[in-house]
Amino acid sequence: MLVDMPLDRLREYRPDPEEPADFDAFWKQTLDDAAGSPIDARFEPYDARLATVDVQDVTFAGWGGQPVKAWLLLPRHRSGPLPVVVQYIGYNGGRGIPYEWLTWSAAGYAHLVMDNRGQGGGGKTVADTADIAPDGHGSSSPGFLTRGIEDPYRHYYRRLITDAVRAVDAAKASPDVDPTRVAVIGGSQGGGLALAVAGLRDDLSAAIADVPFLCHYRRASQITDNGPYAEIGRWLKGHRFEVEKAMATLSYFDAVNFAARADCPAWFSVALMDNVCPPSTVVAAFHRYGGPAQLEVFPYNGHEGGAEYDVPRKLGALASVFGPS
Amino acid sequence: MLVDMPLDRLREYRPDPEEPADFDAFWKQTLDDAAGSPIDARFEPYDARLATVDVQDVTFAGWGGQPVKAWLLLPRHRSGPLPVVVQYIGYNGGRGIPYEWLTWSAAGYAHLVMDNRGQGGGGKTVADTADIAPDGHGSSSPGFLTRGIEDPYRHYYRRLITDAVRAVDAAKASPDVDPTRVAVIGGSQGGGLALAVAGLRDDLSAAIADVPFLCHYRRASQITDNGPYAEIGRWLKGHRFEVEKAMATLSYFDAVNFAARADCPAWFSVALMDNVCPPSTVVAAFHRYGGPAQLEVFPYNGHEGGAEYDVPRKLGALASVFGPS
Amino acid sequence: MLVDMPLDRLREYRPDPEEPADFDAFWKQTLDDAAGSPIDARFEPYDARLATVDVQDVTFAGWGGQPVKAWLLLPRHRSGPLPVVVQYIGYNGGRGIPYEWLTWSAAGYAHLVMDNRGQGGGGKTVADTADIAPDGHGSSSPGFLTRGIEDPYRHYYRRLITDAVRAVDAAKASPDVDPTRVAVIGGSQGGGLALAVAGLRDDLSAAIADVPFLCHYRRASQITDNGPYAEIGRWLKGHRFEVEKAMATLSYFDAVNFAARADCPAWFSVALMDNVCPPSTVVAAFHRYGGPAQLEVFPYNGHEGGAEYDVPRKLGALASVFGPS
Amino acid sequence: MLVDMPLDRLREYRPDPEEPADFDAFWKQTLDDAAGSPIDARFEPYDARLATVDVQDVTFAGWGGQPVKAWLLLPRHRSGPLPVVVQYIGYNGGRGIPYEWLTWSAAGYAHLVMDNRGQGGGGKTVADTADIAPDGHGSSSPGFLTRGIEDPYRHYYRRLITDAVRAVDAAKASPDVDPTRVAVIGGSQGGGLALAVAGLRDDLSAAIADVPFLCHYRRASQITDNGPYAEIGRWLKGHRFEVEKAMATLSYFDAVNFAARADCPAWFSVALMDNVCPPSTVVAAFHRYGGPAQLEVFPYNGHEGGAEYDVPRKLGALASVFGPS
Amino acid sequence: MLVDMPLDRLREYRPDPEEPADFDAFWKQTLDDAAGSPIDARFEPYDARLATVDVQDVTFAGWGGQPVKAWLLLPRHRSGPLPVVVQYIGYNGGRGIPYEWLTWSAAGYAHLVMDNRGQGGGGKTVADTADIAPDGHGSSSPGFLTRGIEDPYRHYYRRLITDAVRAVDAAKASPDVDPTRVAVIGGSQGGGLALAVAGLRDDLSAAIADVPFLCHYRRASQITDNGPYAEIGRWLKGHRFEVEKAMATLSYFDAVNFAARADCPAWFSVALMDNVCPPSTVVAAFHRYGGPAQLEVFPYNGHEGGAEYDVPRKLGALASVFGPS
Amino acid sequence: MLVDMPLDRLREYRPDPEEPADFDAFWKQTLDDAAGSPIDARFEPYDARLATVDVQDVTFAGWGGQPVKAWLLLPRHRSGPLPVVVQYIGYNGGRGIPYEWLTWSAAGYAHLVMDNRGQGGGGKTVADTADIAPDGHGSSSPGFLTRGIEDPYRHYYRRLITDAVRAVDAAKASPDVDPTRVAVIGGSQGGGLALAVAGLRDDLSAAIADVPFLCHYRRASQITDNGPYAEIGRWLKGHRFEVEKAMATLSYFDAVNFAARADCPAWFSVALMDNVCPPSTVVAAFHRYGGPAQLEVFPYNGHEGGAEYDVPRKLGALASVFGPS
Repeated sequence: MLVDMPLDRLREYRPDPEEPADFDAFWKQTLDDAAGSPIDARFEPYDARLATVDVQDVTFAGWGGQPVKAWLLLPRHRSGPLPVVVQYIGYNGGRGIPYEWLTWSAAGYAHLVMDNRGQGGGGKTVADTADIAPDGHGSSSPGFLTRGIEDPYRHYYRRLITDAVRAVDAAKASPDVDPTRVAVIGGSQGGGLALAVAGLRDDLSAAIADVPFLCHYRRASQITDNGPYAEIGRWLKGHRFEVEKAMATLSYFDAVNFAARADCPAWFSVALMDNVCPPSTVVAAFHRYGGPAQLEVFPYNGHEGGAEYDVPRKLGALASVFGPS
Repeated sequence: MLVDMPLDRLREYRPDPEEPADFDAFWKQTLDDAAGSPIDARFEPYDARLATVDVQDVTFAGWGGQPVKAWLLLPRHRSGPLPVVVQYIGYNGGRGIPYEWLTWSAAGYAHLVMDNRGQGGGGKTVADTADIAPDGHGSSSPGFLTRGIEDPYRHYYRRLITDAVRAVDAAKASPDVDPTRVAVIGGSQGGGLALAVAGLRDDLSAAIADVPFLCHYRRASQITDNGPYAEIGRWLKGHRFEVEKAMATLSYFDAVNFAARADCPAWFSVALMDNVCPPSTVVAAFHRYGGPAQLEVFPYNGHEGGAEYDVPRKLGALASVFGPS
Repeated sequence: MLVDMPLDRLREYRPDPEEPADFDAFWKQTLDDAAGSPIDARFEPYDARLATVDVQDVTFAGWGGQPVKAWLLLPRHRSGPLPVVVQYIGYNGGRGIPYEWLTWSAAGYAHLVMDNRGQGGGGKTVADTADIAPDGHGSSSPGFLTRGIEDPYRHYYRRLITDAVRAVDAAKASPDVDPTRVAVIGGSQGGGLALAVAGLRDDLSAAIADVPFLCHYRRASQITDNGPYAEIGRWLKGHRFEVEKAMATLSYFDAVNFAARADCPAWFSVALMDNVCPPSTVVAAFHRYGGPAQLEVFPYNGHEGGAEYDVPRKLGALASVFGPS
Repeated sequence: MLVDMPLDRLREYRPDPEEPADFDAFWKQTLDDAAGSPIDARFEPYDARLATVDVQDVTFAGWGGQPVKAWLLLPRHRSGPLPVVVQYIGYNGGRGIPYEWLTWSAAGYAHLVMDNRGQGGGGKTVADTADIAPDGHGSSSPGFLTRGIEDPYRHYYRRLITDAVRAVDAAKASPDVDPTRVAVIGGSQGGGLALAVAGLRDDLSAAIADVPFLCHYRRASQITDNGPYAEIGRWLKGHRFEVEKAMATLSYFDAVNFAARADCPAWFSVALMDNVCPPSTVVAAFHRYGGPAQLEVFPYNGHEGGAEYDVPRKLGALASVFGPS
Repeated sequence: MLVDMPLDRLREYRPDPEEPADFDAFWKQTLDDAAGSPIDARFEPYDARLATVDVQDVTFAGWGGQPVKAWLLLPRHRSGPLPVVVQYIGYNGGRGIPYEWLTWSAAGYAHLVMDNRGQGGGGKTVADTADIAPDGHGSSSPGFLTRGIEDPYRHYYRRLITDAVRAVDAAKASPDVDPTRVAVIGGSQGGGLALAVAGLRDDLSAAIADVPFLCHYRRASQITDNGPYAEIGRWLKGHRFEVEKAMATLSYFDAVNFAARADCPAWFSVALMDNVCPPSTVVAAFHRYGGPAQLEVFPYNGHEGGAEYDVPRKLGALASVFGPS
Repeated sequence: MLVDMPLDRLREYRPDPEEPADFDAFWKQTLDDAAGSPIDARFEPYDARLATVDVQDVTFAGWGGQPVKAWLLLPRHRSGPLPVVVQYIGYNGGRGIPYEWLTWSAAGYAHLVMDNRGQGGGGKTVADTADIAPDGHGSSSPGFLTRGIEDPYRHYYRRLITDAVRAVDAAKASPDVDPTRVAVIGGSQGGGLALAVAGLRDDLSAAIADVPFLCHYRRASQITDNGPYAEIGRWLKGHRFEVEKAMATLSYFDAVNFAARADCPAWFSVALMDNVCPPSTVVAAFHRYGGPAQLEVFPYNGHEGGAEYDVPRKLGALASVFGPS
C-alpha cells in the first residue's frame, strides 16, 4: 500500500531545507583535510575464475588516509581506457564478492564498487574495510546513522562520504579508466552517497540515485519505523531533549543539501510503497537538485524499486552521457 | 535460530520414502507423451545492450508441446560449442530479465535459464510462459503446490518437471552448446527441479541443488508455516479428510524419490536456519541420492543459503566435471 | 481502528469510474457465448440427515458449458414453488457442506449456493468445481485476481461471473422455485458477484451485497495490504511497467461498473474497520448503483461486517420484495 | 505446523493429574448450594422470523440462583418431546443470535444453547447474562481464567460450571424435551464445560467435546502463548511466587479431573495444529475419561478443528445414543 | 513514527466534548454515597528493610466502603507533617512493592500510592485490592474499560474513580501528612485518574498527568488498536448496534469532562508516538482544562513518555506549589 | 511459553565450555595494560534535588585510561564508610539519571552505577561515556556484540569488561566506601559483567547476576532470534565461512569461562520464558561457577526476571555478606 503522499502531492512537495550556515565550510575543510593524504590507489589482480571479466582488488586512501577497499571490474576484451561507473552500496552491505556486480562491466564499462567502512554485518553483502574513528563517539543506536550524532565532525557519515568522494579519485587513477567520463551510481544508501558526491565534485558526467537514503531526516524519522531512518527515533526516544541537536548534526549529511549543489545530469527513482526510504524524502532531494534531473516512479514497488528491471533505463542514461562505448 | 534438527541429528536422518508403486511408470508415460512433440527449440537474438554477452530469447516445446520460454546467455568472445549450465528458477519467479543471470556466461559457459510456466507473479523475477492445463484442475490453495492435487496426472508439477526435462533437450539443440557437457542447477524450487531432472535423465554431467524445495512433503508440511510448503497445510485445513490422497499425489513429485534414481555427481547445499525448505527435508533427499554427492552446510543461513558467496564452490564443481573450458 | 476515510468523507466519495469503452460489448459477447450451452441444471437428492431441510446436489453448465456445482436447500414442509435466494461465496471458499447454509431455507425460501470454480483451498469452506481455462493463462500471483490479468478474455473472473449469471438460470430451472422471485446475495467476493449479476441481468427482485469485494481495484490496491486486493500489488511489484494494462483488464470485472447497470433494489453493507474490502471501495460502488439502494454501516467492524447479527435486516429486505412467504 | 507432540507420542501421553483431595466435596457443596434455588426455567417465544424453527428465549436460575439466559430451538413441525442437545459456547462468546445455531434443530432435536455469564465481549457472539460475584475477586489478568484465582470458591469457573450443570435441568424442564435423552456438546470452552457436566451429572446420554479448553492448565500455560491459557502465564508473570497457589485453584476446574468421573459415552476431537488448546492437553483429558470414548484427530487443523465438516460424525454419535428421532 | 496529528494541528485540536447532562449529578450522588462510609484509613508499619524510608501499609474505605490498599512512603528522617503526593497507577498494574516507588519520598515528600481494585494481573506491578461489584455486570471485553458498559452506575471506573477521590482523604488522614498540601499524580490510567480527581475535588495544590488515559473515548477507539482503548472496539465489534449506548456510558468517565471542572494548576505531558494514549486524546483534555495548565511534548516517545527523565520537571512543579520542603 | 529446556533438564545441563588456551593470559595482559593508567576517580556533587540521597557524578579511567562515567548514590544521613554495591547496566542502556537507581542507597549502601561506553542509544536509559577504539574495527552487525569480532583484542567487550573491573577500583577509591565490602550486581548484560568481574577480581564479597547475558554464545545464537544474541547470527549470515573464527573471539568474553574462575558467593536468577537470555545459557554459567552459588528460578517470567519483586532476596544476600549495616 502507499506509505506516504499520493503521487500528485509528491509532485508538489518542496519542503524547506534544513541547511546549516557552515555547510559548505564544513565540507571544504573535511575534503581539504582528506586531500592531505595522497589517494594511493592500488589495483591488485583478483582471481574470480571468470572468463570475460578482469577483477581487481582495489585499496585507496579514504577519510583520514585510512585504507578503503573496492573492486574494479573490467571487460577482459577491451581496447584502451573505459568510461567508469563508480558504485556505492546500500546500508550495512559492502563490496561483497565480485559475482554480485557483473552488470556494468558486461555493458562495456569499467566498474568500481566502493566498500562501506565498518558495515557489511547486515547478513547480506559483506565489507572488508575497517572504520577507524580516532576520537571515538558517544552513545549511538545500533546502526550507523546515530554514530557520532553528538558532533558532525565525529559523525560516521562524515567519514563515509569522504571515502565516497575519494573513490572517484581512485577510479580516475586507474590506467584502465578514462578520467573524463565518470558516473556515480547507487541505490538506497548508495544513492544518497551518489548525491553527496555529485554535490561535492564537479567532474562527473552523471549521477544515478535509486530510492536514495540520507534525505530529509526529520520527516523520515517521523513517518517510518522501518530501516535505518528508525535509528534516529530510537536514539531520540532516549535522548528526549536533544532533538534539535541531533537534527543539526544530521543536516550536514542530508542529500537534500548535497542535491542543491550538484550540477551534473541526474536520474532518480522513487517507489511509492517504499517504507524504508519514503517517497517524500526522495522527492525532497529531487526537487532541489541543481542540475538536470529525471525521476522514474515505481508505483507498486517497495524499497527494491526497479531492481534489475530498471537496468535498461540506466544503460540509456549512461549511453547518453558517455557516448558510444 | 535453528528451525529443525541440530546438525548431528541431520547427519543421521534417513526417513522412509513415500514412493508410489507406479512412480517410474507414471514418469515414463509422461515423458514419452512429451517426446511425441518435437523439441522445436528456437533461439532468437535479444538486444540486451551488453558488450560481453550474447543473449538469445529461447522458445521450446515443453509439456503438451506447449511453448516454454528461456534465455540462453553466451560469452560474446567464444570459439566453438560450450558446456552448458541449465538453470531452473525458484518458486513464483521466472526467467526475468537477462541482467539477473550474468554469472555462468561470465565464467565461460553457455547458460540456459528456463522459465516457470504460469509463475512469475511473486513480485520478484517475472515469467513469460503460460500454464495451459486443458483439463483444468480442482480446488487449490493460492500457489502452485496444490494445483491439481486431486490427481497426479493433473498436477502442476507434472507439467513443470516435464518442461524441465525438456529444457535439457532444448539446450542440447543449440549450435553453441556442446551436448555432451550439460549440468543442471538451481536453488529452492530450481534445486528441486534439478534433482527431478537428474532422476529422469541419464545424460547429465552434474546436478547442483541449493536448499532444494519439492522434498519430503509430509514432514515439510508439519514443521514449517513459511513458504510454499505451507500451501499443503492450508489446503488440508479445509480438506480434512483427504490427507492421504494429497500425500499420494505429491509423492509423484517428491525429489526424495527422484534423487534415488539419479546417478550423475551432485552438489547439495542446506541451511540450518532455513524455514522455507527445512534442513531435514533437504537431507532426506541428499541421503537417498543415487550418485556421488556432497553436502555444503550453512549453519547460520536461512533460505538464501550460500547466495553469491557460494559461487566459487560451484565453479569448482563445474570445472571438475566439464574440464578446462 | 479506522482503515480508510471517516464516515462523513465516505458519504461524499464518488470517484471517477474506470470503465472500458467496450464493457457492454465484452459482457454481451461473453454471456451470449455462454448461452450457447443449455443450462442443463440437475438436482440430485443429497442425504444430509436433516429433519427439516431437503438438500439437493446441483450441477449446471456454467462458463464454457463446464459443470458448476451448487447446493439447493429447501424447507421440507413446503407447498409449491418458493422464492429463491441465490448465494455467492467469499474468496477462496466454496459451496462447502450444507450445514453451513441453513438460514435462508429455515426462513422459508429456496436457497441455491453456487460453488466457486477452482477455489476452496483457503482452509475454510471447500469447493467441488474445477476451473478449466482451455487457453491457460500467463503469470499470476498466488490467488485468483491476477489469473489471466494479461487479457480480459482469459481472466478468471470472466469465467466466475459467467457462472454466477447462469446460477440464476439454474435456480429458475428448479420445479421448487418460483422463477419470478429471485434475489442474489453474498458477502465479500459473494457480494461483488451479486453486484455483477445485478448489473448483467434484468430479472432480479433484489441484490444484497455485504462488504463487497471486486470494487475499485486501483484504489484498493493502493490502500490495503490485506486480503486478495493485495494480489494486484504483488503482481505489479514484479510487472512494474504493466500497471495500466492490469488496471484495464480489471476494469472489466469492477463492480463499480456493474453497479451502474443494475436496477433492482439493493442493500449494501460496509464496515469502517474492514482492511480487506476498504470502505471507500464499497461506497464507490454504492454511490454508482443504478437502482434504489440502502447502505448499512458497521462502524467498529472489520471484514466480518454484520455477520449473523445482520440477518434480520436481510430478512426484512427479502420480505419487502418477495412479499409474504 | 505441529504445535505439540507428534501423533504417536500423543497416543501415549498420560500425565499425572493434579487433583485436589477435596475435589468431590468442593463440587458436591457447590452443586448442593445451587440446588437450593429452584431451577425456575422460563421459556418465552422469540420471533426470529423463521419458518421452520421455533425459538424460545430461556431464563433459568444458575449459580447463586442468578438468572442465566439460553435459547431453545425446536423444529416447528414436531410431535411430542424431543431428545435435547445442550450446547455450551466458546470463550468470550455467548448465546448470540439464533441464526448462529440452526444445525441441531434442523436435525430434529431440541437444542438448548446456554449463555456465558459476563462473556460475549470478544467481538464474535454476544452474551446476555450478567456475572454477579457478591464477594468480588482479586487481581486478574484481562479475561476470565484468572478471575478469582486466589480462591476456588471465588473463581469464575465455579459459577460458570454450575450454570452449565443446571442448564441440563433447565432443558429437562421444557415440555418439548424428553428428559431421558440429553446430550451435552461444545467446542473449546464449550467442550471443557461439556466434560465438566459429564463428570458432575449421571443422567446424560452423551458428551461431545471438540478441541476442549479447561484441560491440564500447567502444561497448557507452558506450551502456548495463544488464547485464554496465556492468561495464566500473564498473571503468574506478575505473581511470581504464587505458581502453586494458582495451580491449586485451577485444579478444581480441570476437565482432566472431570473426565475421570464421567461415564456416559463421549466423543472427543483434537487438532494437531491447535495452538489455542494444544493437543496434549486434550488427550490428557481423553485418556482419563471414565466412560467409553472416541477421539477424532484433525492433523492439519488449528483450533477450528472439524468445524461444520465434522457435523456428520456428531449426527452419527447422537443417532447412536438417542435412537431414531 | 507519528501516530496521530502532527504537532501544529494538535496545538489547535479542540473537539466538541461528549458530556451527559447529568454528569455533575451522577458524580455528586456517587461521591455522596461513598461519603456515607467513614474513610477509616489505617496505616500499618511495613518492613521493607530500607534504611532511609518508612513504609506503611495503608487500608482505607473506597467505593461502597470497600477496603482499598495503598502504600505510604515517608522519608525516615523527617520533622513534622509533609506535603503529600497521591499517586495513581497505570492500567492493569497495582501498588506492587515499595521498591518501585522510591522517588517522591526521596525528594522529601509523603507519597501515597493507591492500589487499583481488581487490576494487577497484567504481568507488571501487582495489586492487593479486590473489586467487588454487588450487582455484577454484563458482557465485557477482557479488560476493565467495558466492564459495566451497559450502565454508568455499574461501570468499573465509577468504582475506581471513587477510590481515587477518597485516596486523597486517606492521605490527609495521616498524621505524617500536611493536609493543606496535596498533589495528585499519575501516568496513563494514573494520569486519567489524577485528572478525574482534580475535577471532583477542590482541595488540591496540583495535578500532574502524564500521557493520560481515559480521554476522548470515541476518537481513541477509532485511531488506535493498541492498549486498553482497543477494548472498546472489541466490545463494539460484537455489540454492533450499541455504539451510542457505550459512548454514553463512557462519557461519565471521560477525563475531557473532568478536566473542564478542575481548577488547580496542572502539568500534562504527551508523546507524539504514543499509540496507547494517542496525542489528540490527551490534548483534547488539556485544551479543556479549567485551571492553569502546561503541556510537555515528547516528540519521539511512545507511551513511556518522559519516564524518569521527566522527574526534574515534576520536582520543579511540586516545589512551585508546595514551597520549600 | 517455555523457550528452552524444561526445568528438570536445565538442572542437568552442563555443556562443555569453549575456552581458549590463552584466556587467562589475554585477560592478565589486558588488565595489566589498564592498570598502567591510574584510576583517577573523581566524585563531583550532583544536584538531583533529593532530600535523602547524595548523588555524585563519578569519572574514572577505564580501558585505555579513557574517562568512564558513573553515579555514586549515598544515603544522606550516614556515619562513616558504607559497603558498596557496584552495578552494571543492561545492553544498550547507560547510567541514565539517578532517579532510576534509588533502591540500594535507600537500603543503606553506597551504590555505584557504571556507565556503558558508547551504549545508551536503545531508547531506554542513556549513557554519557564515549567508546574510543583507536584501531577501529571491521564489519559489525548493528549492535555491540560483533564490534571487533575479527580479533579479541579489538572486541568491544574487551573494553567494557575492563571498565567494569576498574569500576570496583573506582568505588573503593571513594572516602564514603568501605573497600573491604564490595558486591557487584547487574541484570542481563549487567549480570554478565558482574560474572566477568567476579572471575577477574578476588576482592569481592558477592556477585549477583540476574538473567545474565554474555553466556554460551554458540548455543545462544542457535536458539534465539531475540535480543543481542541475534547479532551473532546476523553477522554470520553474511560471514558464512567465519563461524569458528567468530566463536573463538567470543569465547574470550564468555561468562561461562569467567564463572569458572570466580570464588565469591554468587546469586543467580533465571527465567524460563526468557527469550533474550535463554535459560540454558544462564545455567551453563551457573553450573560452572567456582564459588558457592544459588539459583532463583522464575518459571513464568521473561527477561524481566524477578524485577523489583526480587529485591528482598537480594537484600538478604547483601545482608548475609555485608553483615549489619
